[in-house]
Amino acid sequence: MRFLRSLLFYRCYTQEVSAESVVGSTKKFTKRYKHRIDDLKRVMANVVVDEKVEKKFFDRFKLEDLLKRRFFYDQSFAIYGGIAGLYDYGPMGCSLKSNIVQQWRKHFILTEGMLEVECSALTPADVLKASGHVERFIDWMVKDVNTGDCFRADHLIKNNLEELMKKKTTTEDQRAEFEQILARLDGFSDKDMNEVIRKYKFKSPTTGNELSDPVSFNLMFPTQIGPTGDFQAYLRPETAQGIFINFKRLLEFNQGRLPFAAAQIGSGFRNEISPRQGLIRVREFTMCEIEHFVDPADKKHIKFSKVADVVMTLFSAFAQGLVDNETLGYYMARTHLFLVSVGVNPNRLRFRQHMSNEMAHYAKDCWDAECDTSYGWIECVGHADRACYDLSSHHKATGTKLCAEKHLSEPRKVSVVEAAPNKKALGLKYKGEAKQIIAALETLDGIQLSELEKALNESVGYFLNVKDKTIELSKDLVEVKRYEKTSHVEEIVPSVIEPSFGIGRIMYVVLEHNFRQRAEDEKRCYLDLPPTIAPIKCSVLPIVHQERFKPIVESVCDELANYEISHKVDDTSGTIGRRYARTDEIGIPFGITVDGESEKEPCTVTLREIDTTQQIRLKITEVGKLIDDLTKNRLTWKDAVSKYPLFKPE
Amino acid sequence: MRFLRSLLFYRCYTQEVSAESVVGSTKKFTKRYKHRIDDLKRVMANVVVDEKVEKKFFDRFKLEDLLKRRFFYDQSFAIYGGIAGLYDYGPMGCSLKSNIVQQWRKHFILTEGMLEVECSALTPADVLKASGHVERFIDWMVKDVNTGDCFRADHLIKNNLEELMKKKTTTEDQRAEFEQILARLDGFSDKDMNEVIRKYKFKSPTTGNELSDPVSFNLMFPTQIGPTGDFQAYLRPETAQGIFINFKRLLEFNQGRLPFAAAQIGSGFRNEISPRQGLIRVREFTMCEIEHFVDPADKKHIKFSKVADVVMTLFSAFAQGLVDNETLGYYMARTHLFLVSVGVNPNRLRFRQHMSNEMAHYAKDCWDAECDTSYGWIECVGHADRACYDLSSHHKATGTKLCAEKHLSEPRKVSVVEAAPNKKALGLKYKGEAKQIIAALETLDGIQLSELEKALNESVGYFLNVKDKTIELSKDLVEVKRYEKTSHVEEIVPSVIEPSFGIGRIMYVVLEHNFRQRAEDEKRCYLDLPPTIAPIKCSVLPIVHQERFKPIVESVCDELANYEISHKVDDTSGTIGRRYARTDEIGIPFGITVDGESEKEPCTVTLREIDTTQQIRLKITEVGKLIDDLTKNRLTWKDAVSKYPLFKPE
Repeated sequence: MRFLRSLLFYRCYTQEVSAESVVGSTKKFTKRYKHRIDDLKRVMANVVVDEKVEKKFFDRFKLEDLLKRRFFYDQSFAIYGGIAGLYDYGPMGCSLKSNIVQQWRKHFILTEGMLEVECSALTPADVLKASGHVERFIDWMVKDVNTGDCFRADHLIKNNLEELMKKKTTTEDQRAEFEQILARLDGFSDKDMNEVIRKYKFKSPTTGNELSDPVSFNLMFPTQIGPTGDFQAYLRPETAQGIFINFKRLLEFNQGRLPFAAAQIGSGFRNEISPRQGLIRVREFTMCEIEHFVDPADKKHIKFSKVADVVMTLFSAFAQGLVDNETLGYYMARTHLFLVSVGVNPNRLRFRQHMSNEMAHYAKDCWDAECDTSYGWIECVGHADRACYDLSSHHKATGTKLCAEKHLSEPRKVSVVEAAPNKKALGLKYKGEAKQIIAALETLDGIQLSELEKALNESVGYFLNVKDKTIELSKDLVEVKRYEKTSHVEEIVPSVIEPSFGIGRIMYVVLEHNFRQRAEDEKRCYLDLPPTIAPIKCSVLPIVHQERFKPIVESVCDELANYEISHKVDDTSGTIGRRYARTDEIGIPFGITVDGESEKEPCTVTLREIDTTQQIRLKITEVGKLIDDLTKNRLTWKDAVSKYPLFKPE
Repeated sequence: MRFLRSLLFYRCYTQEVSAESVVGSTKKFTKRYKHRIDDLKRVMANVVVDEKVEKKFFDRFKLEDLLKRRFFYDQSFAIYGGIAGLYDYGPMGCSLKSNIVQQWRKHFILTEGMLEVECSALTPADVLKASGHVERFIDWMVKDVNTGDCFRADHLIKNNLEELMKKKTTTEDQRAEFEQILARLDGFSDKDMNEVIRKYKFKSPTTGNELSDPVSFNLMFPTQIGPTGDFQAYLRPETAQGIFINFKRLLEFNQGRLPFAAAQIGSGFRNEISPRQGLIRVREFTMCEIEHFVDPADKKHIKFSKVADVVMTLFSAFAQGLVDNETLGYYMARTHLFLVSVGVNPNRLRFRQHMSNEMAHYAKDCWDAECDTSYGWIECVGHADRACYDLSSHHKATGTKLCAEKHLSEPRKVSVVEAAPNKKALGLKYKGEAKQIIAALETLDGIQLSELEKALNESVGYFLNVKDKTIELSKDLVEVKRYEKTSHVEEIVPSVIEPSFGIGRIMYVVLEHNFRQRAEDEKRCYLDLPPTIAPIKCSVLPIVHQERFKPIVESVCDELANYEISHKVDDTSGTIGRRYARTDEIGIPFGITVDGESEKEPCTVTLREIDTTQQIRLKITEVGKLIDDLTKNRLTWKDAVSKYPLFKPE
């Protein structure tokens, strides 16, 4: 720990850099700083104060009140007492969320020609054993020894240390010590955590009782498929596995060519120990995941030049070459563009690299897109290089090869040594297991093959490990062949680059970043959402509640329907100001008022924009097209104002 | 059973009728035929041969081969051996399905201004106990007494009887007997089924072993929420409950007014005992459900006149007045229009009323939209009148009133007798249980209230049932108040009309109904899907694979992208005919060919339609708009042919 503290003096800074300038090979850096890199990242990760972030006043209570009151989302099963970590989306939240997903589909799947799939959420245990989730998708928890209440061990330590740091009696030395524990907490083993808990005598936060040693808790929801009750399954913790399992079908669909990307939009389920922070940590959530399959020897991206000038904020100690390859860099830049397009404030967005002990078990390298919120910086998108981990794991578990063929620029002579199984004999002797034996033979390396050859020649039994068993092989079951062949193709297991989006989190960030209070009246709050994702695009308000305005309101609605613009009529008796306040709250970007002028030929209405509250006057027959252009980013409000006369209500 | 047979002589027929002519009150009919109606329906339900149905030759094997080969959908986890009843959608299936869902959203949610919600799939056991699913959402299964293999009892009986009926040795009398059992099977109790199994000595179909008596099997997938493992939950078997639970929030969102409809699109999960028939019976599926909340005393629908002329096929013995109310009739007509718009053949679509013993436990009346397929008539959409079953059940379980206020046309004097709880005293004595006690007091009727009053006056204890307990009440805890008040509103529990769509089934029907073989070459199959839902709208094919066509192909793609038309370029070296065959297979309705003529000014291409294979010639600059009009139903192919010259390839 002493070493760590000295590293605090390294300058950690945030830098705005173009995608082009940071993509390169990390090798030269890792070579030089090998011994320090992880410690450096660890320290950086905890420098959460960032001068560039606009720290405007934000009243989370006000936003939450609005979201609940206008039913964007709310706790599920509230009349049954509610369940932590489960939320229901109401009409406004549902529309906002589905608009964000639709924008994602356009930005990624359509623009990039990705192969979209939709796989089962119910997943057999065998699949998740192979993927490593049954063993390693866990959190550590401690239990109140009297009540049995469970707490996530790392959260308990974090909360306790933060409390201690606030205390006046805490010395500077202690504070530094606590800081260092916090900086390393993400990489702590159960033993490390137990040491801290015992050292500082932490107790159950609810009762003050003693705590158990940390025990592991698998975060997947278990269930069983079928009537017998003995077919174990889980709800998928990520949509990715469904794509890996379908790799062969997708490769074939893509006519055997690499690279290609598959994508999936769907639910993921994680049985969090103690969910909190609203939509940030939930048990059921919508994910959008991309699995980009690429030749491990060539991770260039054909469209990289299109994003080379995108400026992103990297949270890192190095100025160049930190992003390993173009494909990873390409997706980070595309993610940046997507997040900004749905309303994330680019000044409150950064990309942070994972520490090696912080990464998921399948990942080789990982960059998180993090957004600044009132809860601190939160991960919204992960960009992981999963290498060949998943495809290899499923090959091992099933005996089905998950690889692609790469055409060689010129044919190559290769010496082949291979175990040639006698499939018929194996089938007769081992029935259903034969497939796995053959798969195990395929995985033998050169040395093992020589050993097998020797054993067979000497008629000594050779023992092959197949899953949990050992199989004895003899000459009648297998032989070792050696020959030369000319090969035009090479078999490769593709690397996988995975951008993975948490839609609920992104939606929450968008709501926080676009929540505004009017300068003239801070009680009047509104959501300044980008028109593309606003739940409803336009309101239609007769200036006063009178029968005579009805036909005009209807003709306005017809005009809007003609352009498929979602709209809401409010002809209740409130003042026009109060009615605008209600539509502003739910982020309706445009408002049409029908007034006395509207009855004169040519029929005109006023159109108001939410953020500026400016109004312009135009013909009813022009208003559909204009709003369509505004919501599809073909025009800005500024363009509209320069085209039509400003209207000043008396 | 003798009675049943005589009913076979009633004329059962299919009738095409307009919505208007069938909506009315069922009362006059039920009065007259009361004792016969259910038996009649039972018989009709099994008259599966319908003369009006176009019985074209259909090769299911060919369609299935196509769907697998071009990855519309396929078995989930196939490399792990696959799981019955779980399917993964590939790029084509995913797009087709999402287009059908999008069309549904437009046809119902947008057009009708419904409130869309998205609720949790994880559902606490308490909710599903209240809804009746824990007790009654079951199937009966029998087990092979030696192997433990499970079979659905009704399916086993059906398969065995159908086999017996095929046998030459079976007499006419026996055949009639079997037919009657089949006709009543849906309503059989476990005892009834056991009798049949024992009478005909049915055995395990796989081993010939003896079978156990039928045992009930709950079709919900169980799981647990949270780390302790003792919070029981299920995956939702329908999305409806999420809407009922949110009734109060939705009513408030609708500013307290009835009627309104809420809708949800999402996954449902049913642990079928032995799933079969491809997408027809699966364990995880996408549902689209509408819950229309309406005053039980006034089920008129404001837009009914808009569908009064829609002609539907009813499968029924009566000519008039069989559909109880306008709202139910309105939705049936709207469903008819929706199904036809996504490609269901109207001649193979009918609405069938449920028998009373066939209905789900929550339903009061039910009409299924059924489609004719190679598997027989299958239910694709249910229209259930759930009455106030669900809202009342959740009120009882939670103590939270789920009702609406109805304004009375004139104020009314009402005598009120009510139990007025001393909330403070109850809270002190019973803590968390107080809420349930208060709810139980609210449900007491006049007689019970008088008994309570008497007991309190005489200082005798009054025993109140609260859930599983009995609570003794005394004067300090509650008093009975009697008074008169003037009421302007009446509290009502709304009735619920529920149309519920199974998207996977609808998609399968659409595929079957639109699978075609070319008259000139029956090996050439194609999918004649409505352009609105086709996975890809247009192909772009250079007539031969040559560099010089590349820029023209690119300009065509730009033109299509400009109108957001999904397209696929195939510039591989196959003949144009072979390449068209490949695009026809996946239902791409339009194909553009770039040829030598395209190089001359003004640049033109040919546009081909899949079903007629007719081609027209037009400018590249016109092709985007035309396809946009064709895919959005603003123009038909016939219109296009009359506008542009036909092109005849040499």
